[in-house]
Amino acid sequence: MEHLQVSEAQRVILESVVALGAEPVKLEQSLGRVLAEDIYANRDIPPYDVSAMDGYAVQSANLAKAPVSLDIIEDIKAGDMPAKTVQSGQCARIMTGAPLPQGADAVIRVEDTQPLSESKVQINLAVKPGNDVRLRGEGMRNGDVVLTAGTGITPGVIGVLATVKCAQVQAIRRPRVAILSTGNELEDINDPVDPDKIPDSNSYALMAQVQALGIEPQLLGIARDDPAELEEYLLRGLKFDVLLVSGGTSVGVHDYVRPVIESLGVQMKFWRVAMKPGHPVAFGVKSSTKAVEADAVQGARSAATQAYLADRQGSEHRATQQCAASTAFVFGLPGNPVSSMVCFEEFVAPALRRMMGHARLYRRTITARLTHNIKHQPGRTEFIRVVLAREGDGYAAASTGAQGSGMLLSMARADGLMVVPAGSTGLASGEQVTVQLLDGTVFQDDVGFRE
Amino acid sequence: MEHLQVSEAQRVILESVVALGAEPVKLEQSLGRVLAEDIYANRDIPPYDVSAMDGYAVQSANLAKAPVSLDIIEDIKAGDMPAKTVQSGQCARIMTGAPLPQGADAVIRVEDTQPLSESKVQINLAVKPGNDVRLRGEGMRNGDVVLTAGTGITPGVIGVLATVKCAQVQAIRRPRVAILSTGNELEDINDPVDPDKIPDSNSYALMAQVQALGIEPQLLGIARDDPAELEEYLLRGLKFDVLLVSGGTSVGVHDYVRPVIESLGVQMKFWRVAMKPGHPVAFGVKSSTKAVEADAVQGARSAATQAYLADRQGSEHRATQQCAASTAFVFGLPGNPVSSMVCFEEFVAPALRRMMGHARLYRRTITARLTHNIKHQPGRTEFIRVVLAREGDGYAAASTGAQGSGMLLSMARADGLMVVPAGSTGLASGEQVTVQLLDGTVFQDDVGFRE
Repeated sequence: MEHLQVSEAQRVILESVVALGAEPVKLEQSLGRVLAEDIYANRDIPPYDVSAMDGYAVQSANLAKAPVSLDIIEDIKAGDMPAKTVQSGQCARIMTGAPLPQGADAVIRVEDTQPLSESKVQINLAVKPGNDVRLRGEGMRNGDVVLTAGTGITPGVIGVLATVKCAQVQAIRRPRVAILSTGNELEDINDPVDPDKIPDSNSYALMAQVQALGIEPQLLGIARDDPAELEEYLLRGLKFDVLLVSGGTSVGVHDYVRPVIESLGVQMKFWRVAMKPGHPVAFGVKSSTKAVEADAVQGARSAATQAYLADRQGSEHRATQQCAASTAFVFGLPGNPVSSMVCFEEFVAPALRRMMGHARLYRRTITARLTHNIKHQPGRTEFIRVVLAREGDGYAAASTGAQGSGMLLSMARADGLMVVPAGSTGLASGEQVTVQLLDGTVFQDDVGFRE
Repeated sequence: MEHLQVSEAQRVILESVVALGAEPVKLEQSLGRVLAEDIYANRDIPPYDVSAMDGYAVQSANLAKAPVSLDIIEDIKAGDMPAKTVQSGQCARIMTGAPLPQGADAVIRVEDTQPLSESKVQINLAVKPGNDVRLRGEGMRNGDVVLTAGTGITPGVIGVLATVKCAQVQAIRRPRVAILSTGNELEDINDPVDPDKIPDSNSYALMAQVQALGIEPQLLGIARDDPAELEEYLLRGLKFDVLLVSGGTSVGVHDYVRPVIESLGVQMKFWRVAMKPGHPVAFGVKSSTKAVEADAVQGARSAATQAYLADRQGSEHRATQQCAASTAFVFGLPGNPVSSMVCFEEFVAPALRRMMGHARLYRRTITARLTHNIKHQPGRTEFIRVVLAREGDGYAAASTGAQGSGMLLSMARADGLMVVPAGSTGLASGEQVTVQLLDGTVFQDDVGFRE
């Protein structure tokens, strides 16, 4: 039985999945999606030379012998257009964002001035032309591409989209994801507590991992160890873009789940990965000859999007891409809660991210100092749950304790997954190790910088 | 006019805001929230000693002279209860998660065995008692506190909550946030393009920043520079827990917005912070004498939650906490889009995180190597938009280019905000600098580790 390396398994998966089609999305619902069209500036920003500060619009040549006294000829607020031209010896009171009046070539901020009367101000310093002036088109220039297809939609991107007044954008659609747990031993969250059973935590942990990627998955429930029931559940799941099946993929039940899955037309690409926890992990593809949805979606794509997708994914994937939307991908995840979660992070998350059109597929990694020794027998890549602590300029990583694959609490406490290379014969306290950051680590306790 | 340091301003804000009250939340909607109650295990996990592998349950004492041949007396699947006792010379075929039968004290994984017949198997190695057995209660023990109030709800935590069958939990409620833009120069996203106006991007960038924290804000629109209109908008905004007002807080319009805000009972704590971009940033509190909602929420809190909140926030905040829910916090943010976004990250996000009950309030920071010189005049803490690139074990940081406060594109492109300390006289290429990671950096391009 072949065990793939983690990287080989990731390659197999990512060669199979491609970005899905585009759909129109309201700006309010676009955060975390990926642009499927190039975005153009529809005007110059700022639309004219404007003041970058509250102060006075001046002729810089007047200030050579500062301090100098100037006559105030006008008040210009943001939203106003200046009515007068600033002549030598004159200035205009001006607000941030307000248009620079004719004749003026610089702005002096109010802090560097002194009022002399209602109509006179003393300017205390000399400046060069252009001082505290934002030039027309400095932010963006009418007609320029300001965002390209493939850009992940962050708050900053939403700011830019609002600037060019995209109340709606073409974005890659989100994969539809179904989650199925299998096993006679499992107890549904709504069942009464039966001390002889095992609560189904995988459905919910996987649900939350999918939600964390911005996708609302469908929970199919628990399929019992019965071929007919399993087939019925799998058939429902295969109508989604991605089906996550936890449990039922270990050696003992192979003969049970595998033939059912394969009888439904799923081509299994692998069943084993040399990793700990979680080596019984499987991946399969059910291709459909009907590419109805894909065609419809394809038709909705702009030429720019199609060029972008073709370019990003390479010609070898173009055929797959044509029917991507009618293809179902099946991940067989371990029944053990921690193993299931780790496999999701390593294999499912990158696949879902790619389907959403993202270029950044993998969890952010940082380097940290290991605070204790780690035993490891060469063979499998190990993912150890760690907590991180700030330490000088960097981080220290410490195991969350018992790393048994049933220890879900250790996952709940973890800041990250430390990677022990497959070939390692153990890691020593003080070594620099690589840690993949998990969900709870976007924010930290302390501000983390000195002023 | 006093300019606070960034850290002083953060302190003023975080001394004012406290965690809000608790509310029942369905597990499916709990991701990103914070637990407001301690969670107890309601059974042992696993409920009995179980096999950690697919294989054979054996008496370890039988294997001293391995390879040995054993009689298979039973098949035990997960969800089955064993019917027989394993005697010397016997074993039971067992699946991962299935209960260990009486008499057996270890499991041999199937890979270390050889089938001899339907009822006989050869075991190829000797093991110690407990080998590949997960002991009853190893994962969690009935009655133990497994999660404490104040825990951020990550996918791992949701797995634990499902394990103890919390289909609903008490979680700190989310603050209600309103967003208001001000200024005659602003053009609404649905207005036709007027080249003399400035599109209102702040409402949407702030919306997305709030959404990224898991809160759906309310956009109030654009208030024109008219005291009556401004008052009307502010009155609506002050009914929310938090009101973000962008624009209208710079020096020139002080006399305009400030008296309106203050006339509505908002006590302004500061108007100026020594930072770049974004120093015209203000913070105020409108306390209400009516603590109606707070009382109702308080009543719904468990004793454990109240103790937790009191403990975490210290006795000096208890009085505030009692009416937290009826207090409105007002942030006056700069009109410049980049300044507004940076101020949100430094001041608003930590406040909203605290109101949601989080202990981790600040953006994750990493250390990176600066790739070029940075000029800086001592005085203000500067936040420079940078892109990050992996470099050996760490990261290199490079400015996104022009850092003018109107350059929203530079924010859209940024991976993080590099902090230049207020006292710095410039940073040199090669220096280690601190970078706050922004939203788009939870994932990265490459897997980031070697197997």
